[in-house]
Amino acid sequence: MMNIGVIGLGAVGLFIASSLAKRHEVTGYVRREEQANEIKDQGIIVDNSETFVSVTTSQKFKEHDLIIICTKQMAIDTLIPTLELVGRHTPILFLQNGQGHIEKIHHLPHPILLGVCEHGIVKIKDNEVSLKGLGKIRLGALHKHHAELAVDISLALYQLDFPVKEHGSITDVLNRKLIVNSVINPLTAIFNCRNGSIMTNDHLKYLAKKLTKEAAMTLNVDEDEAWERVRQVAEQTKENYSSMLSDIQAKRQTEIDFINGYILKKSSDFLPYQTNVYHMVKAKEGLRE
Amino acid sequence: MMNIGVIGLGAVGLFIASSLAKRHEVTGYVRREEQANEIKDQGIIVDNSETFVSVTTSQKFKEHDLIIICTKQMAIDTLIPTLELVGRHTPILFLQNGQGHIEKIHHLPHPILLGVCEHGIVKIKDNEVSLKGLGKIRLGALHKHHAELAVDISLALYQLDFPVKEHGSITDVLNRKLIVNSVINPLTAIFNCRNGSIMTNDHLKYLAKKLTKEAAMTLNVDEDEAWERVRQVAEQTKENYSSMLSDIQAKRQTEIDFINGYILKKSSDFLPYQTNVYHMVKAKEGLRE
Repeated sequence: MMNIGVIGLGAVGLFIASSLAKRHEVTGYVRREEQANEIKDQGIIVDNSETFVSVTTSQKFKEHDLIIICTKQMAIDTLIPTLELVGRHTPILFLQNGQGHIEKIHHLPHPILLGVCEHGIVKIKDNEVSLKGLGKIRLGALHKHHAELAVDISLALYQLDFPVKEHGSITDVLNRKLIVNSVINPLTAIFNCRNGSIMTNDHLKYLAKKLTKEAAMTLNVDEDEAWERVRQVAEQTKENYSSMLSDIQAKRQTEIDFINGYILKKSSDFLPYQTNVYHMVKAKEGLRE
Repeated sequence: MMNIGVIGLGAVGLFIASSLAKRHEVTGYVRREEQANEIKDQGIIVDNSETFVSVTTSQKFKEHDLIIICTKQMAIDTLIPTLELVGRHTPILFLQNGQGHIEKIHHLPHPILLGVCEHGIVKIKDNEVSLKGLGKIRLGALHKHHAELAVDISLALYQLDFPVKEHGSITDVLNRKLIVNSVINPLTAIFNCRNGSIMTNDHLKYLAKKLTKEAAMTLNVDEDEAWERVRQVAEQTKENYSSMLSDIQAKRQTEIDFINGYILKKSSDFLPYQTNVYHMVKAKEGLRE
């Protein structure tokens, strides 16, 4: 049993905190007092079953065996000073989309793990989510000399209904997820459609292929392999709404800067399709009609 | 007083038929029996004032002094055989957006006039429109040797509240309108916004500028001049919804093939922004969620 701090209880954080609480001692860190109170009063509800975890709005983290960062990319900047106060031997697992955060956390003295959450989770309320598709959490060490620790932690976290897998080169896994996100997220956000429409609408499929090609080229991933993965994810999650579409609908800031913006920054070439969707999602963020 | 046939009573056709009926004998040609009956029974209503005109669903045109074609571009193909039966001295005025139709009507033996309708007209019902902005109808001869006829007809049609102006090089006027349409129409259709948003949203403005540049380059128009015109139209019609957005909302086919599709066909270069909006409007047409 580990003592785990989960930072940020959005859809992913709620699911992870509730899953890990079956075997570990979990403390959730949130910013809003109302959310903290709801979770204290009613627990975290995952598809009608409730789990109680400790929750606090404290900005200072307690001693933990592992800290899991489940916030969005844009929250990382403000988190860094807090993380610098955490004991230097405490492993920290980052579960953000994209890769923009890696350079920001590179200097931290702690064992840094990077991970990808493949579960399909939909947030229903501040303390309630629904699991639409069970995936895996894939994780790995940012620095090679923490590879063994990454294996240990993945085994310690593993549960049958909460699979965790260690990957030697986690940045490859992050790259592959980034490509999928850079295609499905902006198209569904612009067109206000479910993930499945990307493969059933000929023109969305055409744009998706072009976006995949540009992203794969930029991140040195085989284009056909990348396209196959985009196709699979769109198919497997065809009834779902992407997180970027949900952000647009809720008038929240999207992660476009950390997904398509990151690819554009990485590329030395002009990427016409990535550039267009970048500006279009930004335009959508700005439209408040 | 002329005897004028107006073919197609959409927003533009209804307004033109009703305006001309004050001074001329007008016959409207429509396809649907229900629309014919509504116009026969209630007249054409423009902002609460009604005008009665003859209307018929006949596919054969009577003798007229002038025929004005107010259908959309896509109806031109099916109209050609009917027009070939019209007396070869009858002038025909085409008021379509874009220029794709010009090559199709080039062979007709009649005096061909091309025109641009700048009025802001919104269709309310099959027999009712609202005039949101009084513009001009600009017309000119397709072939130089009909230039004088074009002047005569513009003078004959002219009314204080229905200004008509002859232009020596009408294709320049068509080009300029095409550029504006290739920017405002697709962006408003994709983003489901009023024309004015294109200048108030920084990212839409960015995309608009890129689209203008590509279109101006393709049609040999000065880029700054073209941009100034786009800016003006977006400003002057800021509260309006574009025809392409209205088509998308009503689940009708849009004129994208004759606007952005025409520019893409004309260009020997790859136009990244025009290409993207082309596929995006096509995607919108296909999405029926």
